[in-house]
Amino acid sequence: MLGIEVEASRSRQQRLWKALSDQSLDALVVTQNEHVQWLVGPRYEWKFSPAAVLFADGRVVLVAPNEAPEAAAADDVLTYEAQWLCTLRNDQRAASSDQVLKVLREASGLKRLGVEFSSYPVHLSSQFEAQLVDIEPELYRQRRQKDADEIAKIRMAISGTEKMYEKAREIICPGINELEVFNQLQAAAVMQYGEALTGTGNDFASGEMGGPARNRQIEDGELYILDLGPAFRGYFADNSRAIAVNGKPTDEQQEAWTYIMKVFAHLESVVKPGKSCKELFLEVQEILKAAPIGEFPHHLGHGIGLYPHEAPHLNSCWDDTFAVGDVFTCEPGLYDAKLRFGMRLENDYLVTESGVENLSPFKMELA
Amino acid sequence: MLGIEVEASRSRQQRLWKALSDQSLDALVVTQNEHVQWLVGPRYEWKFSPAAVLFADGRVVLVAPNEAPEAAAADDVLTYEAQWLCTLRNDQRAASSDQVLKVLREASGLKRLGVEFSSYPVHLSSQFEAQLVDIEPELYRQRRQKDADEIAKIRMAISGTEKMYEKAREIICPGINELEVFNQLQAAAVMQYGEALTGTGNDFASGEMGGPARNRQIEDGELYILDLGPAFRGYFADNSRAIAVNGKPTDEQQEAWTYIMKVFAHLESVVKPGKSCKELFLEVQEILKAAPIGEFPHHLGHGIGLYPHEAPHLNSCWDDTFAVGDVFTCEPGLYDAKLRFGMRLENDYLVTESGVENLSPFKMELA
Repeated sequence: MLGIEVEASRSRQQRLWKALSDQSLDALVVTQNEHVQWLVGPRYEWKFSPAAVLFADGRVVLVAPNEAPEAAAADDVLTYEAQWLCTLRNDQRAASSDQVLKVLREASGLKRLGVEFSSYPVHLSSQFEAQLVDIEPELYRQRRQKDADEIAKIRMAISGTEKMYEKAREIICPGINELEVFNQLQAAAVMQYGEALTGTGNDFASGEMGGPARNRQIEDGELYILDLGPAFRGYFADNSRAIAVNGKPTDEQQEAWTYIMKVFAHLESVVKPGKSCKELFLEVQEILKAAPIGEFPHHLGHGIGLYPHEAPHLNSCWDDTFAVGDVFTCEPGLYDAKLRFGMRLENDYLVTESGVENLSPFKMELA
Repeated sequence: MLGIEVEASRSRQQRLWKALSDQSLDALVVTQNEHVQWLVGPRYEWKFSPAAVLFADGRVVLVAPNEAPEAAAADDVLTYEAQWLCTLRNDQRAASSDQVLKVLREASGLKRLGVEFSSYPVHLSSQFEAQLVDIEPELYRQRRQKDADEIAKIRMAISGTEKMYEKAREIICPGINELEVFNQLQAAAVMQYGEALTGTGNDFASGEMGGPARNRQIEDGELYILDLGPAFRGYFADNSRAIAVNGKPTDEQQEAWTYIMKVFAHLESVVKPGKSCKELFLEVQEILKAAPIGEFPHHLGHGIGLYPHEAPHLNSCWDDTFAVGDVFTCEPGLYDAKLRFGMRLENDYLVTESGVENLSPFKMELA
């Protein structure tokens, strides 16, 4: 499940076509690496410019850099030369587009094409006449519902954060440098995955609401918010813990923590398919307003997947409803100068038929 | 020099316009993050979708995520909302394009637009009628010549590899895991930069020609090729050293090494502005053909900058000529099963008026 799952990609192709069925599209052209991975299987680094053409009859052509991948949910694979004598070309998108153009021209009667408006290259739009329809919003809608192969990769990504927090609790003490913490935590995730990470976020600044690791020694009395977003083969985890640097949270910090914990208890008791995400956000605002100290100025959470933030949105700016297959974060926080500077705790959840499964059931305490 | 250098960006804008002067362009629209950084200054992570509009009269408008940056080589800054209550939007390119569209519509008489064909969004091409001209090839041509602010960042990137090799020579011994080497080397570069890397390549597989770090213990007798490509604020270093895992290179390994070293001596004696890169490549092929063992199957080198491989190309597939301001790699290699599995040594050079400066003058030896 951690490699390329051809059947899963095929089912995503079918799901996408079904969702687009009222658009009368003759074919889809996809050029974003995440969408190639999601629909066809292989993951290509940002340095490469793959593409995929999906026809309405189900046929799929992958345009791959250099050579055909070991596995792909495609009927045909064309390649383009991404490198010459090992040197990466700077005109890869043009070369990849030449192959897509060939595929489009060989097919007949393509009048309406579904494309990603963010990235459909002019090499194609200026050479192949067709009505263009933006399928990017639908791609994001469909990406929201995670399949078993995706959930497996996300679980692996999350298992990296578990090891990172174990390491953090072992090494954090007054005087340690934030960069040293960053390095040791990245290393813990690499050892867990058995390979390099594909993402190295998020927050490693102590005594702050967030921010990157700095060349700075952490101080006695601070809370250290570690919001960790390592990615495994493209899929992001996103968890947070707050750790008392001196191992002795103050009474105020400890009291704030109990209000944060109420949010998780509430979520686990009310979230199931059909629950409004915005409503949950507003309920949590009420819970946290009752806390004797601290402000809660940000979202409650968001979906995770091939991009760090996806639907569903636990946020008053959107109006989503929880559905089976959602994988989302819950990250209540309370911040105040007196809390030096506060705390954010974040778990990842999977929405099931009857409720939620906590995908990050590891230690939540401040010390 | 390691931050945003407004004057340098302004001079790049002028250089680009000069190179495009015969194209009768009314404005340029740039949406790739590297090109926004190169022309306007601020570096935005891949998660964001900035843009810049450059008018023929020199006026520049930056479209920035969320808020105006601290500094920018722009006359006006418009912002788009990349996040709502901290949640990243999945439709950022559409939001950014709305602002670009406003800028284009407020200007009058824009008939010919220079754009990056790889990435100019349909949000713009479908909404604003203009003749489109591909400026991406010219952008890459202009990026080749590095300015002082870019060379400063590349020097910093390279200083990371120096620390990485020092650490490698300290820790490499039979039995150490490739992932452990990867982790300790990344950490060394982070400490040198004082911040997280923006790139973490390249080759960390021992006893191979290349490849990522694996969950594997390195073995007595192998040569460990460490081809290191950390990036500092977007700018890539690219160096390689080969280290005898047991500290005792064989006579065959040592002899092959002397042929590799001849390449550097040759390069340093012949490269200056006007020298053909392809000719150098062919000369080096001859030098390495004379080696009693090993094959040299790849390029000799390439430019480095905001992408790992740029012009000039020390490669028979291109026909470039060295010019002042080139920053390029020289990476001769010899590979053979008997060398377990060979070596590649790589330095970065700057082309000056009279020759080259070696930007990575640190230990080359196998042990």
